[in-house]
Amino acid sequence: MTPLALHPDRYFDPSTRKIARDLYEGVCELPLVCPHGHVDPALLAQNERLPEPSTLIVRPDHYVLRMLYSQGVPLEALGIPVVDGGEAGRAIGGDPPVETDPRAIWQRFAEKYHLFQGTPTRSWLDYEFYETLGIRTKLDDHSAMRIYDEIEEKLATPEFLPRALFDRFRIEVLTTTDGAADSLKHHEAIRNADWNGRVVPCFRPDALFNIASPDWPAALRELERAVGEEIGGYRAFVAALENRRAFFKTLGAVSTDHAVLEPYTHRLSEREASALFEVALRGLASAEDRQRFEAHMLMEMARMSVEDGMTMQIHAGSFRNHNEALMRRCGPDMGGDIPVRTEFTRNLCELLNAFGCDRRFRLILFTLDEATYSRELAPLAGHYPALRLGPAWWFFDSIDGMRRYRRLITETAGIYNTAGFNDDTRAFLSIAARHDLARRVDCDYVAHLVAEHRIDLADGREMVRAMAVDLARDAYGL
Amino acid sequence: MTPLALHPDRYFDPSTRKIARDLYEGVCELPLVCPHGHVDPALLAQNERLPEPSTLIVRPDHYVLRMLYSQGVPLEALGIPVVDGGEAGRAIGGDPPVETDPRAIWQRFAEKYHLFQGTPTRSWLDYEFYETLGIRTKLDDHSAMRIYDEIEEKLATPEFLPRALFDRFRIEVLTTTDGAADSLKHHEAIRNADWNGRVVPCFRPDALFNIASPDWPAALRELERAVGEEIGGYRAFVAALENRRAFFKTLGAVSTDHAVLEPYTHRLSEREASALFEVALRGLASAEDRQRFEAHMLMEMARMSVEDGMTMQIHAGSFRNHNEALMRRCGPDMGGDIPVRTEFTRNLCELLNAFGCDRRFRLILFTLDEATYSRELAPLAGHYPALRLGPAWWFFDSIDGMRRYRRLITETAGIYNTAGFNDDTRAFLSIAARHDLARRVDCDYVAHLVAEHRIDLADGREMVRAMAVDLARDAYGL
Amino acid sequence: MTPLALHPDRYFDPSTRKIARDLYEGVCELPLVCPHGHVDPALLAQNERLPEPSTLIVRPDHYVLRMLYSQGVPLEALGIPVVDGGEAGRAIGGDPPVETDPRAIWQRFAEKYHLFQGTPTRSWLDYEFYETLGIRTKLDDHSAMRIYDEIEEKLATPEFLPRALFDRFRIEVLTTTDGAADSLKHHEAIRNADWNGRVVPCFRPDALFNIASPDWPAALRELERAVGEEIGGYRAFVAALENRRAFFKTLGAVSTDHAVLEPYTHRLSEREASALFEVALRGLASAEDRQRFEAHMLMEMARMSVEDGMTMQIHAGSFRNHNEALMRRCGPDMGGDIPVRTEFTRNLCELLNAFGCDRRFRLILFTLDEATYSRELAPLAGHYPALRLGPAWWFFDSIDGMRRYRRLITETAGIYNTAGFNDDTRAFLSIAARHDLARRVDCDYVAHLVAEHRIDLADGREMVRAMAVDLARDAYGL
Repeated sequence: MTPLALHPDRYFDPSTRKIARDLYEGVCELPLVCPHGHVDPALLAQNERLPEPSTLIVRPDHYVLRMLYSQGVPLEALGIPVVDGGEAGRAIGGDPPVETDPRAIWQRFAEKYHLFQGTPTRSWLDYEFYETLGIRTKLDDHSAMRIYDEIEEKLATPEFLPRALFDRFRIEVLTTTDGAADSLKHHEAIRNADWNGRVVPCFRPDALFNIASPDWPAALRELERAVGEEIGGYRAFVAALENRRAFFKTLGAVSTDHAVLEPYTHRLSEREASALFEVALRGLASAEDRQRFEAHMLMEMARMSVEDGMTMQIHAGSFRNHNEALMRRCGPDMGGDIPVRTEFTRNLCELLNAFGCDRRFRLILFTLDEATYSRELAPLAGHYPALRLGPAWWFFDSIDGMRRYRRLITETAGIYNTAGFNDDTRAFLSIAARHDLARRVDCDYVAHLVAEHRIDLADGREMVRAMAVDLARDAYGL
Repeated sequence: MTPLALHPDRYFDPSTRKIARDLYEGVCELPLVCPHGHVDPALLAQNERLPEPSTLIVRPDHYVLRMLYSQGVPLEALGIPVVDGGEAGRAIGGDPPVETDPRAIWQRFAEKYHLFQGTPTRSWLDYEFYETLGIRTKLDDHSAMRIYDEIEEKLATPEFLPRALFDRFRIEVLTTTDGAADSLKHHEAIRNADWNGRVVPCFRPDALFNIASPDWPAALRELERAVGEEIGGYRAFVAALENRRAFFKTLGAVSTDHAVLEPYTHRLSEREASALFEVALRGLASAEDRQRFEAHMLMEMARMSVEDGMTMQIHAGSFRNHNEALMRRCGPDMGGDIPVRTEFTRNLCELLNAFGCDRRFRLILFTLDEATYSRELAPLAGHYPALRLGPAWWFFDSIDGMRRYRRLITETAGIYNTAGFNDDTRAFLSIAARHDLARRVDCDYVAHLVAEHRIDLADGREMVRAMAVDLARDAYGL
Repeated sequence: MTPLALHPDRYFDPSTRKIARDLYEGVCELPLVCPHGHVDPALLAQNERLPEPSTLIVRPDHYVLRMLYSQGVPLEALGIPVVDGGEAGRAIGGDPPVETDPRAIWQRFAEKYHLFQGTPTRSWLDYEFYETLGIRTKLDDHSAMRIYDEIEEKLATPEFLPRALFDRFRIEVLTTTDGAADSLKHHEAIRNADWNGRVVPCFRPDALFNIASPDWPAALRELERAVGEEIGGYRAFVAALENRRAFFKTLGAVSTDHAVLEPYTHRLSEREASALFEVALRGLASAEDRQRFEAHMLMEMARMSVEDGMTMQIHAGSFRNHNEALMRRCGPDMGGDIPVRTEFTRNLCELLNAFGCDRRFRLILFTLDEATYSRELAPLAGHYPALRLGPAWWFFDSIDGMRRYRRLITETAGIYNTAGFNDDTRAFLSIAARHDLARRVDCDYVAHLVAEHRIDLADGREMVRAMAVDLARDAYGL
């Protein structure tokens, strides 16, 4: 067994380590502001014992799944069930059986743990193991079962119930992501519980804007159920969205979120929008119809944000379910979403011209195309008052990814046009790990500015504090 | 009051600092070659006392304006006048009054000075304050008025007259940027003055090529006035441009400059070009007509450069006046120009095939799309004899921006296919600051090459000298 | 004369040098795995004395030629012959004579050797001079002739015969690149020789897929000769390709290679493919026909790779022969190939959906568009089991280029989805230099991970070993 260590200087460049340490001391104890993520609110509403390690750590984490899958481990061998009994998306070369033994899954994962060398997954997991779970042995094929048992033992104690962890992590606020028609019953339960944790929803109506999808009619029906009325036309549709936003606000929501392939924005006349909605109701909407409708609805979302004060987020550039057979077989979120080149300057021109200088509006942009950081996003954020840049997202939510983000953005937009950190995670147990990593990387970045005499240490302290908590609070109005 | 310091090792990576210092000593005293910029020649023709600090430092600097604007400071609060009395471009939420008290503007600027932490604006300004103006206090809300008074006092002395500063900065040559129809009377005045400073114009005919613009007829009339003839057709137009280039040369011009959205080049037949010109004269030119005409005129500009020996510059990729309401309200150059993705390999194919191997031709390219540095620009410059790469431009005229430029370009194109440094500034007072920063960053880059034993120190010394002065002199034939 | 030194710590960042050294000691003596390159197999089949220095080092190296050409040295002055007697592609300003004196070429090269400061060419050449050829004097105008004579002396000894160098370099396997119709007679000769060196061909059928090229009929005729049958239609064409692949395998081939402008993949029906082939036979294929045919043939190549187990390589994004006059005058591979923006996510969708999860398939991708590393390639390779990423290619086969490659890819795809190193060279003498440089850069990268406590030293040792040899062996099934 090899011992597991978590070095106090980790993620600090050795040549500026002393300054980074100094800066980090000023932020490491600050509360965690979590304005965007995907934790299931049921977890905190029910506050039940967390599931065994494979179900907790391996199966829900698409970072883990995709890496193992890319190296030849079938998802079935990791316990991922087949969506429809295997009719569709039949695996080439025979269907592997779905593993049901969680210990076998954990052993398989441990044997491949070296694949994560140099990745953020490894950094987050080692923190979880060491800091959150108290493990002192490096995970590998030999230690797998022992570590499994140790985790199981811990999870059985009250200190590891979700709310206890929430408090231990010092989470100031945790935002979930919720469909427009969601009942938010778990959020209601949390509000009514004898517990002070702040958990708020975020309004994500994507499914309702994709009028070309076969799933659109079902999404619309859910919306009808949620508002308790039939939605026969575009006007009623807009009213229903306003209604739901207002409901989300009653449960503490401060933001909306919009995932789009391209961040194209364009206002249609009410007549055009109505006509598209009719076409959609008849099930005839084309891909181009969808693109125009989405572009228009982003304008509408911005308009509503001006009115209700909710911060608007756009996550652009993910080509969803690239691996179609896998999607049909195992469902979405299995690691098959791949980025594409993204354009912001022209696509956002109409939205920013309409609302970008409005003091009541706040828009946060996220990209998977790093070429846009310095070319488009920083110049836009360094100009439009309404705009803030979301942190390094997804594949770039990593040590080198965050460094590039800071180095490519700060000189043009400064740090005050950025929105602080998002953990953006489904993996509740990893939240503390992610914030700690982000804070360390930001301290390392600022330490370089200090060491190169680009700023003085007093400025540096101000900056890392803003990056750790203040900018997130401000950008989301928390 | 916090003291202001300018560390002698600033912008040097601590791990290679000693070598960087050594290299910097060899170039810090060299004269400043300024082959591209936007200083108003009237400043040096008239040699009058510089205006008070807000008018000198805040109001003309779009880097300063955009950052303050992006954080909610209306341009009016910084003293920017409304172009047309406020009819057009009415601000949302009521028009703020235009500030007329320069001290109030300065105070506002000082209160927001922290926004520039980690940006090149801060580096330039701190140098201006410390080195050029002799300020020893850090600018903030407390020190603002004291520093204002200190600057005012300095500016009242003869040492701070424009020509005195020009000489103190050791400027070897300063190039301005001038419309094709400009009378160049200030350049003439400088020539005739009892002063040896070399100030030369640069021929920038953009307004004449944009045949789809409502401003084109006025630009054409100005050209007619300048050449003293009516321009009734394409041939006369080309002759007038040749005439003006010759006139610019008599006043020392060595270069032309062309700002384009896309660097598309394509030769039209004379018949096609004439037809487009006719369409333009009738006020009917479309965006596509403009694109074709511009592509053709770039070919013509290259042809003329072969003939008259003037170095041709292309600045590509800026989407001008993205914020239309602001443009209508306050005019251009307020920080609302945003880069777009740019393509060089295919767009320049025709121009480079026609002139790229001609020994009489010299073309310098600038980009706002860093993805093109290593993918297109360095490979092109590392092949075509006529081509040189302009320095990191605009948003990338910064410490990290310049580092990326060197690291992305040198391995493919070497340093001898680059064109040295451009300060590209309107802010006369910042010229010394910008050259100093650029030299330090280049020394830091070369110090890494030495420290990693990729070159020896003798090579390093040769390289930083070339980067500081020789390459600029050579690229522009100065 | 200045002494030439090769520092033992070269290419190591000083701040992590000690760890890098430690890691490098573990890999510097490992054999060289060369799975992709352009060495002429005749060299090893004939094992004759290598030619004089200009013919050996200057004339065949497009990195050297392009840099000298970009700084005004005509290719003729470097001894490059004119393809067609000078009819086509006449140089502007009079044709320079083709230099025939190799010593004059060498002197010219030496006088311009400073142009390569900071480029990988310089690093490779200095290694060749110092380590391979035993030169102890820095190349410049003074030392040129002395070094020329020293090299000549060395080349005359048996230690410098090609096979002796192959063995001295510890080459485990060397892959050449060969047209689909190549007789592979040199490979056969090597097999039959009294020598154990492993030299294997790689199947590159590009010329046969470009149905719009005037050279296509000739390529097809060569294929007919090679298979000994007339190829009257699409079916026979496919059969001939299968036949040739099988033949290549008998001489040890483990891979195919495909150079495309865009990596577009799309399966046509047999009827469509046949129809395109008919059009091509009639000499009527358009650029669009070519694009569709190529897209289909990539699907076919993948299908055949599934069947015969050969690793498929795609090199995308090079715009060939940008400088048309030079191409007509001096032929291809003179430094006039320029990269273009490349798209993988959408273009490869069909191929990856068809074969990306097939355990029998292995695809390696190469790019000249670094923006795709983190945005498209690492996410794709971090998902699809069949996919591996080829090393930093061509303009990026350099110290900083390789660093960017590792930093942009590892956090998303890990190192185990990369394919190790390719020297990709025509310059046999430079092979050891290139592998040494690559290993040093990888050790430097991993040393940073260790120094920042992102991995421990044991992990680091495992990683650099994989990067040096194991990943290449595995990716190519060697």
